[in-house]
Amino acid sequence: MREAEPIEAAVRQLSRFPGIGRKTATRLVYWLLRAPQGTSGEFASAIKGLEEGIVECQLCCTFTSKERCDLCCSKQRDDELLCVVEHPQDVLAFERSGEFRGRYHVLHGALSPLDGVTQDKLRIESLMARLNSGGFREVILAMDPDVEGDTTALYLSHRIEQKNLAVRLTRLAHGIAVGTEIEYANVSSLTRAFENRREF
Amino acid sequence: MREAEPIEAAVRQLSRFPGIGRKTATRLVYWLLRAPQGTSGEFASAIKGLEEGIVECQLCCTFTSKERCDLCCSKQRDDELLCVVEHPQDVLAFERSGEFRGRYHVLHGALSPLDGVTQDKLRIESLMARLNSGGFREVILAMDPDVEGDTTALYLSHRIEQKNLAVRLTRLAHGIAVGTEIEYANVSSLTRAFENRREF
Repeated sequence: MREAEPIEAAVRQLSRFPGIGRKTATRLVYWLLRAPQGTSGEFASAIKGLEEGIVECQLCCTFTSKERCDLCCSKQRDDELLCVVEHPQDVLAFERSGEFRGRYHVLHGALSPLDGVTQDKLRIESLMARLNSGGFREVILAMDPDVEGDTTALYLSHRIEQKNLAVRLTRLAHGIAVGTEIEYANVSSLTRAFENRREF
Repeated sequence: MREAEPIEAAVRQLSRFPGIGRKTATRLVYWLLRAPQGTSGEFASAIKGLEEGIVECQLCCTFTSKERCDLCCSKQRDDELLCVVEHPQDVLAFERSGEFRGRYHVLHGALSPLDGVTQDKLRIESLMARLNSGGFREVILAMDPDVEGDTTALYLSHRIEQKNLAVRLTRLAHGIAVGTEIEYANVSSLTRAFENRREF
């Protein structure tokens, strides 16, 4: 015996989410069925709103509800600094730290040819167009510290160097995360922490 | 800086789910944004379908997409056996075991006055009406083995005894779950397992 079809359909959809299996999806669907009248409708319209309301910013390619995102429109930012990141969420992470006051460019992923993520799948040409139009004194390649991120940073650095722009290319420092106990730090972080050690 | 409003709205909704916090909700929303065109629409219509397509069965009160659920309509079941359960999911659990071939009645909860769940919040009157119309030789009170479940079973047994029906009232056996190591069994299960011990 199966669930009634509308329940089954909702379970099927929710279990497509990464990390949510059939059991959890079923639990969520029954929670929705017991929730106050109108709850499912609120969920549905919020999710539908993602499709209708979210586009990529024409300039930096992050997700936004307008043609240009708030950060690209802001007049309070340093126009000569550009931070290139993999994902829109990375922009928010940097903004939370409050450390960076320049502009962003979102690639929407990192190079991974085996997974079908080649240059043309990322927002690399729009990045090159931005660099061509000039005005940047520093470009920070802020990819994730993994194989795909390193590959992407290397590829971008080659592409940018070919242009002979008077631009400083930098990357983030890697090492032991603040708050980590050395005992539990992973090998790669420890290796990088040693390589990049500084004078006391 | 906040997410774009449609993203924020979707995160807000998804984090209403029990066990899903803001971080997980954000991860799910970004997964939806990266998913193939149309995915959010499929999710939204499946969830909306819960509100429009699911009602309570007129007879047993389980969730169904019709006036009467498949189990109530089936001619293959024993009409003289009734299993009273707390939740629609319990019906599916029993059906998976294949042990029970009678009819069901779903209360939609268990008595818990402190949480506002009083008799009138449960489908008790429709249960009494079914019993009045007669024909059952056994009613199995299959509530969860916890305080609320025990309270509900006790309350129902009083109500049913008052009717002086020629009906056998039973409850499920409680004890150590199959597959449990005694070392890790909880105290209440061990107590019940001792109380209900049987001849070898």
